[in-house]
Amino acid sequence: MSNDPYTVISADAHAGLPTPLYRDYLDKKYWPQFDEFLAGRDQAVEDIHRMGTSDRAFAEKWFAENEEGLEGGWDAQRRNKEMDDDGITAEVIFPDADAVESRTCAPFGVGLGLSGDMDPEIGLAGARAHNRWLAEMCADSPERRRGAALVQITADTDDVLAEIRRSYESGLRVVMIPAMWMNQEPYHSRRYDPVWQLCEELKMPVVTHSGPADKESYGENLGIYVTEVVWWPARPLWFMLWSGVFERFPGLRFGVTEAGCWWVPGLLWFWDRLFLGQKGAEKLSSLGITMQPSEQFDRNCFIGSSNTKRREIGMRYEIGLDNMLWGNDFPHPEGTWPRSREWLAKTYHDVPIAETRRMIGEAAAEVYGFDLASLRPHAERINVTPESLGQTDDAANVARWAGHREVGRHWLTGHDFPLAPV
Amino acid sequence: MSNDPYTVISADAHAGLPTPLYRDYLDKKYWPQFDEFLAGRDQAVEDIHRMGTSDRAFAEKWFAENEEGLEGGWDAQRRNKEMDDDGITAEVIFPDADAVESRTCAPFGVGLGLSGDMDPEIGLAGARAHNRWLAEMCADSPERRRGAALVQITADTDDVLAEIRRSYESGLRVVMIPAMWMNQEPYHSRRYDPVWQLCEELKMPVVTHSGPADKESYGENLGIYVTEVVWWPARPLWFMLWSGVFERFPGLRFGVTEAGCWWVPGLLWFWDRLFLGQKGAEKLSSLGITMQPSEQFDRNCFIGSSNTKRREIGMRYEIGLDNMLWGNDFPHPEGTWPRSREWLAKTYHDVPIAETRRMIGEAAAEVYGFDLASLRPHAERINVTPESLGQTDDAANVARWAGHREVGRHWLTGHDFPLAPV
Repeated sequence: MSNDPYTVISADAHAGLPTPLYRDYLDKKYWPQFDEFLAGRDQAVEDIHRMGTSDRAFAEKWFAENEEGLEGGWDAQRRNKEMDDDGITAEVIFPDADAVESRTCAPFGVGLGLSGDMDPEIGLAGARAHNRWLAEMCADSPERRRGAALVQITADTDDVLAEIRRSYESGLRVVMIPAMWMNQEPYHSRRYDPVWQLCEELKMPVVTHSGPADKESYGENLGIYVTEVVWWPARPLWFMLWSGVFERFPGLRFGVTEAGCWWVPGLLWFWDRLFLGQKGAEKLSSLGITMQPSEQFDRNCFIGSSNTKRREIGMRYEIGLDNMLWGNDFPHPEGTWPRSREWLAKTYHDVPIAETRRMIGEAAAEVYGFDLASLRPHAERINVTPESLGQTDDAANVARWAGHREVGRHWLTGHDFPLAPV
Repeated sequence: MSNDPYTVISADAHAGLPTPLYRDYLDKKYWPQFDEFLAGRDQAVEDIHRMGTSDRAFAEKWFAENEEGLEGGWDAQRRNKEMDDDGITAEVIFPDADAVESRTCAPFGVGLGLSGDMDPEIGLAGARAHNRWLAEMCADSPERRRGAALVQITADTDDVLAEIRRSYESGLRVVMIPAMWMNQEPYHSRRYDPVWQLCEELKMPVVTHSGPADKESYGENLGIYVTEVVWWPARPLWFMLWSGVFERFPGLRFGVTEAGCWWVPGLLWFWDRLFLGQKGAEKLSSLGITMQPSEQFDRNCFIGSSNTKRREIGMRYEIGLDNMLWGNDFPHPEGTWPRSREWLAKTYHDVPIAETRRMIGEAAAEVYGFDLASLRPHAERINVTPESLGQTDDAANVARWAGHREVGRHWLTGHDFPLAPV
């Protein structure tokens, strides 16, 4: 029984058409702008190499070694094969399959570059094209896929709500919003309440995905970008939490994707301290914040930590086992594909099996509404088992972590440190 | 011997004249603008209460209970008495003694509100007034004080260098820069190299202090401010580190003050991983980054963690014992004054004595250039001892932390977690 296969869900995967092919999904009136956009793509590839997030030698090797698998970025059948081989039962799909040279960039750059300050008409048009195509792809093996509709929520609210409804009706079940509102209203604004309300009603989790940052301020300094690229997509979380969005919409789920989760324990501790302090509580209550931040986080938030690191595994009792969703980031080179089975073993080998089930699949199934029963035949075929992850002595693993598990969020359990008492 | 008194250095204290009294230190040509500034102060107090960082009932109680002690905000004799009573041997002095109603705000708000986008002439004029007065105050018991000169480094470079030299000659030994450059050039710019060079030459640590944030984006949501108020003053650290400032100026010291240090371990781990990865190292080396980030941090950076929390104590082997300077934040209500002796006991009671000596005094002495021999008579009179902190069984405390100390920065010592192996 305990060696039953895992339902491995990648809460971070990518898909996108080779950019020119998006034309068929784009309203004809935007074709002239699309031609202009296509003409500028070569420069965009130059910029990517200049910033150093990729380099030419690496790119050539990557494309040569993975030519067939990378077609899974847009071809559903190939994608299914890659998932099976890589150990993945089901997946949540974000835009932009090609992270190396951005050759499957959504029209007008509305994919991972989705930004609050885009021309709203153009932004929604480009997003609609991607969303239409993505819905088609998710219609292949729908039980295995949850596609994220791109929605520039800073646009006109009626247009935004219409696109969310249209996406839902077409089969998409997730709403990806711009990580950065830029010159538009911050996400604490009540202006967005109708968006949160509709997403709550439709049970569509709202997510950001890393990529955007304050790039104009960085010059060519790659390290600054890498430092801040996890902060900007996370920022909406505390704008929503501290303005009471999760109190007004208790069924809403908000997630930050591919931003690691190593920064979560410090914030939860910091936030709860503010809330639990007498002065803070009084002021916050007058602002409509009546629920402890870590409780709001547990109920409403999650992190797509993607290629979870061992350091983060050590923090899981503070972050919350259900709040840190694993993902293979297919088909991005910084992800674990095509070696996710090895990565899962390397990362979870000493984690109790019951915890692993939550962290690599069942928590994601709940957040994103996958049906575990429908996934079971896939999980059995794919056959990632506790034994295959090296979890051969579960009792020892349970015992090993008992002290840390008991301490958990130390500020709520009467301990000073997130360390097992010595 | 081991019960020798500690040299307790507060790396975060504040001083400022009641605002109208700054007139005598301000060049006469700016008096008309100063009159305008004074006229607007009542509204500023209103704003403070509205934002909820303070409230009226609390303010009344605070001023009533601490009337005499608060005069130590500008009166050197009174200040010495408060230091002695509170257990403080020496101190580093930042602006704005009154954090409750900002009634000792430096001219034109250049104190904790020092900002990169101020009118450079007015900004430097206001700073010069404060710096002149502060130098006078530091001339009383100079062995016990290091005053931070306010310097708006986004102004004309020649003016900036002149004010740093003038401040140094007047006895100030620290340079406080705007935490936020705002619409001016980010701190990775080579434009600031002459500033870093001069500060290195004069051995004046460069510091930011918390307070500024992206307030315009927060509305009235106090929790957003509290979340981000530690991030913005820390931001210059990674702009400088990743643009090679510490490689070009190896003797420069940069510190972030009153921003906690709970966020440091995650960043050091994240940064070292980028640097130690093959792809990252190649790209970074082409940008002039050749030294491991955590080594740069140890050599060039420090955090004024002020009222250090127990959670942070538990992280000290990752942060570095010499990189987290304690401070009483005198005379701010969120600090530990007038009960620092109790706070020190509460925070350090189970920390080995040798470590405590570094963390509450000797590390600050090195960074800020205090002379321990001159401070010794004060330390003996003030008499904060290991015994008075409850450190009665040092051998047990040393043993208790041995596992964590051995693990240290786990990513450099072959461990997966910042936890003692179980």
